[in-house]
Amino acid sequence: MADLLTKRADDYAQWYNDLVLKADLAEHSDVRGCMVIKPHGYSIWEKMQGALDRMFKDTGHVNAYFPLFIPKSYLAKEASHVEGFAKECAVVTHYRLKSDPVHGVVVDPDARLEEELIVRPTSETIIWNTYRGWVKSYRDLPLLINQWANVVRWEMRTRLFLRTAEFLWQEGHTAHATKAEAIEESERMLDVYATFAEEWLAIPVIKGIKTASERFAGAEETYCIEAMMQDGKALQAGTSHFLGQNFAKAFDVVFTNRENKQEHVWASSWGVSTRLMGALIMTHSDDQGLVVPPKLAPVQVAVVPIAKNAEQMEAIRVYFAPIMADLRGRGITVKFDDDDQKKPGWKFAEYEFKGYPVRIAIGPRDMENGTVEVARRDTLEKQVMQTVDLGEKVEHLLTAIQSNLYQKALALRERYTRVVDSYDEFKEAIEEGGFILAHWDGTAATEEKVKQDTKATIRCIPLNGDRSPGRCMVTGAPSNQRVIFARAY
Amino acid sequence: MADLLTKRADDYAQWYNDLVLKADLAEHSDVRGCMVIKPHGYSIWEKMQGALDRMFKDTGHVNAYFPLFIPKSYLAKEASHVEGFAKECAVVTHYRLKSDPVHGVVVDPDARLEEELIVRPTSETIIWNTYRGWVKSYRDLPLLINQWANVVRWEMRTRLFLRTAEFLWQEGHTAHATKAEAIEESERMLDVYATFAEEWLAIPVIKGIKTASERFAGAEETYCIEAMMQDGKALQAGTSHFLGQNFAKAFDVVFTNRENKQEHVWASSWGVSTRLMGALIMTHSDDQGLVVPPKLAPVQVAVVPIAKNAEQMEAIRVYFAPIMADLRGRGITVKFDDDDQKKPGWKFAEYEFKGYPVRIAIGPRDMENGTVEVARRDTLEKQVMQTVDLGEKVEHLLTAIQSNLYQKALALRERYTRVVDSYDEFKEAIEEGGFILAHWDGTAATEEKVKQDTKATIRCIPLNGDRSPGRCMVTGAPSNQRVIFARAY
Repeated sequence: MADLLTKRADDYAQWYNDLVLKADLAEHSDVRGCMVIKPHGYSIWEKMQGALDRMFKDTGHVNAYFPLFIPKSYLAKEASHVEGFAKECAVVTHYRLKSDPVHGVVVDPDARLEEELIVRPTSETIIWNTYRGWVKSYRDLPLLINQWANVVRWEMRTRLFLRTAEFLWQEGHTAHATKAEAIEESERMLDVYATFAEEWLAIPVIKGIKTASERFAGAEETYCIEAMMQDGKALQAGTSHFLGQNFAKAFDVVFTNRENKQEHVWASSWGVSTRLMGALIMTHSDDQGLVVPPKLAPVQVAVVPIAKNAEQMEAIRVYFAPIMADLRGRGITVKFDDDDQKKPGWKFAEYEFKGYPVRIAIGPRDMENGTVEVARRDTLEKQVMQTVDLGEKVEHLLTAIQSNLYQKALALRERYTRVVDSYDEFKEAIEEGGFILAHWDGTAATEEKVKQDTKATIRCIPLNGDRSPGRCMVTGAPSNQRVIFARAY
Repeated sequence: MADLLTKRADDYAQWYNDLVLKADLAEHSDVRGCMVIKPHGYSIWEKMQGALDRMFKDTGHVNAYFPLFIPKSYLAKEASHVEGFAKECAVVTHYRLKSDPVHGVVVDPDARLEEELIVRPTSETIIWNTYRGWVKSYRDLPLLINQWANVVRWEMRTRLFLRTAEFLWQEGHTAHATKAEAIEESERMLDVYATFAEEWLAIPVIKGIKTASERFAGAEETYCIEAMMQDGKALQAGTSHFLGQNFAKAFDVVFTNRENKQEHVWASSWGVSTRLMGALIMTHSDDQGLVVPPKLAPVQVAVVPIAKNAEQMEAIRVYFAPIMADLRGRGITVKFDDDDQKKPGWKFAEYEFKGYPVRIAIGPRDMENGTVEVARRDTLEKQVMQTVDLGEKVEHLLTAIQSNLYQKALALRERYTRVVDSYDEFKEAIEEGGFILAHWDGTAATEEKVKQDTKATIRCIPLNGDRSPGRCMVTGAPSNQRVIFARAY
């Protein structure tokens, strides 16, 4: 199967697209920009959802559900938000179809909505309009609410998972009595995202804040985690926004504070989306196909019995049954593939291409010897193992694979991160890709000039970076700290 | 809080609406017909999702995701489907907004879609259009796929959970090589729904098939489970459809069968929705508020310490900690409510009104005596229990409550189910509510006449009912078996 895959070195974008399609992760639908997430892809997304949902609940959040539709006028209520989101939207104008002898089905012109509805591109407006009824006093705060939902942004150029008109995501929307609490919440959720990225996705990320021009429309501050893909391009993997009182003011959400005074509520919002699927694929996969970290793999271990006939198959099944039970008892997901319509070689290729972390092969000779052949997907190494304590060995191997994937990605990022002091150096370095740490004078004009000249943007101002001051590589004006420039997805 | 609730006997519909709002389950949004599902309501829905999802996976299904939008022309491809669904739909006609100096934000007339998109009312069309690319041979079958999604049907008269313009649901869409397998699948999923209703929702249901006039638009056969609410009205709690080859023919989905011949694929689809929340509430709740079966309760046990000061509170906390640990070790969800801003009486009222299955009160005197007061929500009974083996006792109590709720609902259904032989008798009986078992001649004309005369519909032809033949109560024509008539939600 891997021979159907474009090599990364030949055409990285084509490799990505091939892989998403051929590993059965997703495909384009007939509806412009909307994808179908196929079962293999969706099962990875489900694992992500499960892990994130537990982390949200462990930090005190609950889930709820708000309407898909937003009245058009809501978008205009928050001044910056309207600039960002009242653009490429799906607009519902009618609520009825009728049969037509010539055209089959037509839109009923009599069923025009008084006010058009927008399919939510994000839910701040409808949620803050709802919160108005929920908050009277400081005792009603904080509201720590998350929503799992689909959203629509009418993107013109789409790529599977990375940029689609409809995508799946979660959006947290919290309301607080004080500015400090809202900022603390924004930062807490950035930490949750960073932990999730590193411990589950096995993707190292840099935590930072966005420049004013890259900030979420309506936010006072946008925090983000930035990852580096194998081609050296950056990918924003999650954002958390401190929204100040902007939406509370736009939707008139006030509360009586502890001093018995009326005050506007403070807010945060934060989200990650099916875009993380793209990040996962582009971080770990290779020319042999998909690589999935064990913690997110739909099935962690595939067992391929090598049998000449039904009798041998049954003997292997019986022999291996206690090991299957042991693996499952350790919480490991495992598939015993006794499909006699497919040859072992075909199965090996399939499991490798689709990213099963560990593959175990076992034939009659192995049974005699008390061994199995264990292949790990990350390094493609195979080794013969004694079946004694096999469950424990496989458990350790899965942990080792998870860790190795992270370390590999971290090594790549470190290799492609450079410190640059002059603009000439920068222009050369950016062609090689990766993250470039450079001083910037803090102006939108310089940021825009760099973007125009090189297509690189400021990914973030790192939160934990080197804080040594310096001089802007473009203008020479003073700078407080280096920022990260990169070309990005 | 219960004194804010209309009594069921006074106005059942108002009781339901009050309860949904005041128990913080859901509320109306500003968008016509669209609801906000509040955290307490959503957490019950999440438990339903979790249980159903496990049952789907245990029967071999996987999840996937298909686009929200359906090209208008797709709806017209299946002749019966278009009659059923090309009606009250949300229609997207434009994909861009623009700023306007006078009106703030307006729809950009230049951004009109060539073909309008429908927000999915159900996904058969878009999914079968996708399946065309997935099925070539019998080896690709069956496809056993489920989707968790939101759907929109532009209902004119809406009621929270029961009938809303947007609702959440799951829709299974399966593809099979033979008619027999597709029918078997439809029946299997009906059984899954019935088991879920009885074991999780604690709602007894009758499995049956719909008459032709009540059949899903595009189905050859619609199977359903019907439940009876406390007011004697019926509620359809889930449907499973055998779709024949209708959608395969409409979307040209053919496969090479084992005899190497081209054949259209056979299909089923099946779904349950947030409507089940309405069924749950109307089956078990009472004039004191919400009643939730333990298996679906967001929190099963609320512990209310009765303390005069912080010192006592801490003493109770320490004393009760091992019991908390024991309860959690048994997989029981429990909340120790040490909020000192609220009085115990207020907490009792809150937990009772919101349907916590078990409430435990413990004060300093109880500690001395080694006792607690345990209140069960279903019967409102209180009893003093020794703390010895309390975890085990509570575990048994939760099982008893789950079972009692089911038995109570079953007893009600049996009390309000009558066998009727004449139309005069029927017209009298229907005014008292409940299920009426009567003979019907199998014609749509008779079904329609009964509906016009009495507002009762045929809920289903029971699968496991008495198969004695008889004569139609209206026309006297021969009938194979009794069917269930009722007024319905």
